[in-house]
Amino acid sequence: MIPANNIEVFFNPRTVAVIGVSLNPMKLGNIIFRNFLESNFRGKVYPVNPRTETIYGAKAYSSVLKIPDEIELAVTALPAEATPGVILECVKKRVKGVIIVSGGFSEIGEEGRKREKEISETAKKVGLRVIGPNCIGVYDPESGVDTTFLPRYRMSRPQRGGIAFISQSGAFGAALLDWAATRGFGISKFISLGNKIDVDEIDCIQYLAEDEYTKVIALYLESTSDGRRLMDVARKTTPRKPIVALKAGATVESTRAVLSHTGSLAGSDHVYDAAFKQSGIIRADDPQDLFDIARALSAQPIPLGDRIAIITNGGGFGVMTVDFLVKYGLRLAEFSDKTLRSLGRKLPPITSKGNPLDLVADADGERYKIALESAMADENVDGLIVIALFQSPALQPDMVGVISDIGNRREKPILVCATGGDFTRVHTQMLERAGVPVYPSPNRVARAMAALVTYRRIRNQMAKNEATLTI
Amino acid sequence: MIPANNIEVFFNPRTVAVIGVSLNPMKLGNIIFRNFLESNFRGKVYPVNPRTETIYGAKAYSSVLKIPDEIELAVTALPAEATPGVILECVKKRVKGVIIVSGGFSEIGEEGRKREKEISETAKKVGLRVIGPNCIGVYDPESGVDTTFLPRYRMSRPQRGGIAFISQSGAFGAALLDWAATRGFGISKFISLGNKIDVDEIDCIQYLAEDEYTKVIALYLESTSDGRRLMDVARKTTPRKPIVALKAGATVESTRAVLSHTGSLAGSDHVYDAAFKQSGIIRADDPQDLFDIARALSAQPIPLGDRIAIITNGGGFGVMTVDFLVKYGLRLAEFSDKTLRSLGRKLPPITSKGNPLDLVADADGERYKIALESAMADENVDGLIVIALFQSPALQPDMVGVISDIGNRREKPILVCATGGDFTRVHTQMLERAGVPVYPSPNRVARAMAALVTYRRIRNQMAKNEATLTI
Repeated sequence: MIPANNIEVFFNPRTVAVIGVSLNPMKLGNIIFRNFLESNFRGKVYPVNPRTETIYGAKAYSSVLKIPDEIELAVTALPAEATPGVILECVKKRVKGVIIVSGGFSEIGEEGRKREKEISETAKKVGLRVIGPNCIGVYDPESGVDTTFLPRYRMSRPQRGGIAFISQSGAFGAALLDWAATRGFGISKFISLGNKIDVDEIDCIQYLAEDEYTKVIALYLESTSDGRRLMDVARKTTPRKPIVALKAGATVESTRAVLSHTGSLAGSDHVYDAAFKQSGIIRADDPQDLFDIARALSAQPIPLGDRIAIITNGGGFGVMTVDFLVKYGLRLAEFSDKTLRSLGRKLPPITSKGNPLDLVADADGERYKIALESAMADENVDGLIVIALFQSPALQPDMVGVISDIGNRREKPILVCATGGDFTRVHTQMLERAGVPVYPSPNRVARAMAALVTYRRIRNQMAKNEATLTI
Repeated sequence: MIPANNIEVFFNPRTVAVIGVSLNPMKLGNIIFRNFLESNFRGKVYPVNPRTETIYGAKAYSSVLKIPDEIELAVTALPAEATPGVILECVKKRVKGVIIVSGGFSEIGEEGRKREKEISETAKKVGLRVIGPNCIGVYDPESGVDTTFLPRYRMSRPQRGGIAFISQSGAFGAALLDWAATRGFGISKFISLGNKIDVDEIDCIQYLAEDEYTKVIALYLESTSDGRRLMDVARKTTPRKPIVALKAGATVESTRAVLSHTGSLAGSDHVYDAAFKQSGIIRADDPQDLFDIARALSAQPIPLGDRIAIITNGGGFGVMTVDFLVKYGLRLAEFSDKTLRSLGRKLPPITSKGNPLDLVADADGERYKIALESAMADENVDGLIVIALFQSPALQPDMVGVISDIGNRREKPILVCATGGDFTRVHTQMLERAGVPVYPSPNRVARAMAALVTYRRIRNQMAKNEATLTI
């Protein structure tokens, strides 16, 4: 058992103080305060602003010390210069956690580094936990905590789902949350780490390993404060819960860029690569890949093997998917004689009976159902890729039900590939919400399936290692 | 000069007969006839249906032979069995081109192959050109020809643009057109080739090489009928106009699948790879990649070198873009002293002055303008990647103008990276329409920039080869 550490307060505070809530609706403090008012947050939230009596009907306090209630979580968006003083007040108030969204710290140089040192020394003495600075904090769709200060019309918030997403960069996090939301991908928790003067990715992984809402941990990292500890924690986590990481700064050129971005040293890329492999962390190639893999792992069962069936209404997409399956080290399943006989009996002559199983352009939901049932029942098949090109008028909305009904049995993983415009988008979002991940290209669907197969291997390997260590 | 061949009739017919226009609005012939009525097609269109007097107010004819006008183009969606008879009638009517959208030919086996042979022999005798069968034909936003029979609510039609798109597979073509349309990517002409009993990709490349609306030729291929001729035609085309090709069937497994899809043999992949290289065809990795590369080539100037500047409001995206630039063989530009001095004077202290040039989260259009102007004027910079995360409230709609104004000077290529949801989509579509391609990930924007640099090398190399041959 990994003990849950004391960062729970960032996700489930009973009381929150937002420090520096301007009356100007464009200012960060104002936006964060409104986030709490407008979300499903069930705790109490107090605005701090010495220059006004009330804000949005709530009484404003001149300082966190004046709030007549215990405060568990404080969020500050005040300028960097004012932040050390705010932290001293929070310590006095016995606040348990502070999120500092403000910039102006180590990312701007020596002066900022001094401020960070002052804050972290103050906080450490009393065990106050700090997220940030230079971050957008936390978004938790379950509890309603939302310190991301980007307006909702610009950055949509994702629905509830199984992916916990930790991002060292705030802008990266915001762009990906927004992208995820409009595609119907759900998340369990989001944490933007920023300059990491206290809470880091290791704390988060430890916490999320025990979090019931989190099925997979997705991590965007530019540097780690403690590679050894990261590996230890990951090794204990990956046999139970997959971790997918995107590490920026793979080259000498980009390492320099990291330094000026979050004031940290990126470290040698091949060291990270080896460390990820040894601790069972799956490495993603780019932001889309991070979510592509995490979505498959959060929603679908892990396959027993690497033999994949492809079912399609577009021959070309089927052919290309074969290319990518082979590229990513998977095998094309060979249907059993029983399956072939059954398909021959039930499907029209024009359909191919091999794998890829080409149901041809006029395939309807019923034809897909026959194919899916057969592949699902075939012991030679470990996983299914379903290509559904919704441009075909034969595909009616019942397709969503056909795929998700069979998917919900959770016997073998099903991933869908669909490319198109607005009509396609409506259907893929329904599939996403029914727990079936959809990918826009043969490359990406095959890569996601390969990640499921990889995680099966990791889980077995890591569990074996752990067993050896325990003995 | 490559002589334009006689397939012009498919794109600019004066008169069209749609053969088999059912009264049922779900049937292919009906949809195709309506496409002509509803588009900007300026020629005359005649419906053929022996069982009715009028269709949508137009007089229906019992046979193409009964139409009291010369017919240049015929489109038939009648069942395969009826098609050879229709072709005989078209020959008698001296039709110049026929598009056969119907399936039921070589893709279903021996019987279908016989039908194809019969049709192609009939057509060849009189020089009748045939597209198909087993295809969705042609879409030309300029002339209004649209034989793609997918309803508009399922498959959006792209606006006018510089990409000609040839697809062997109809479903592949439909999915990609739909995708392109809702993202604001424009095309010049679309041709779905199907079983290629006559018109093939080589005819199309020859024709499109001379087409004024086409800036780049994008090709989805499963097999070629004549590799030698394809290479010859490509060699003559690529010094003037880039060709990007996606070839499916890279593995033994997928080669088998191609056979059942379009009834053709895929051929060995490394032979294609070598042929593409020798004839200057840029090879795409997957459907998204095909359009990613084609969009850059159709809209942006070719860079003089490989030194790229990155300008960003998100440090993490900047760092990752560096990784991919290096991966794809490009170099990070080193700003001249003059540029560094100018940036130091004009940009706030918090921004980085290196490359990537991190304008930080609160960057507005004005800050981008300073950065873009400086990079554009710097002789050490050959191309610009602009990362614009529209989640930031500081980015106003003027950003679109800032980028496209500088882009319109067409001095150096500008590609944009933006990730997000609906708000981002509105802005990226405006940029696309202003001629600045937008990509959703650091990987894809870097890859597209690398394709521009690659094409510069190809153009120089192919022009040199051609000069040698001419001497």
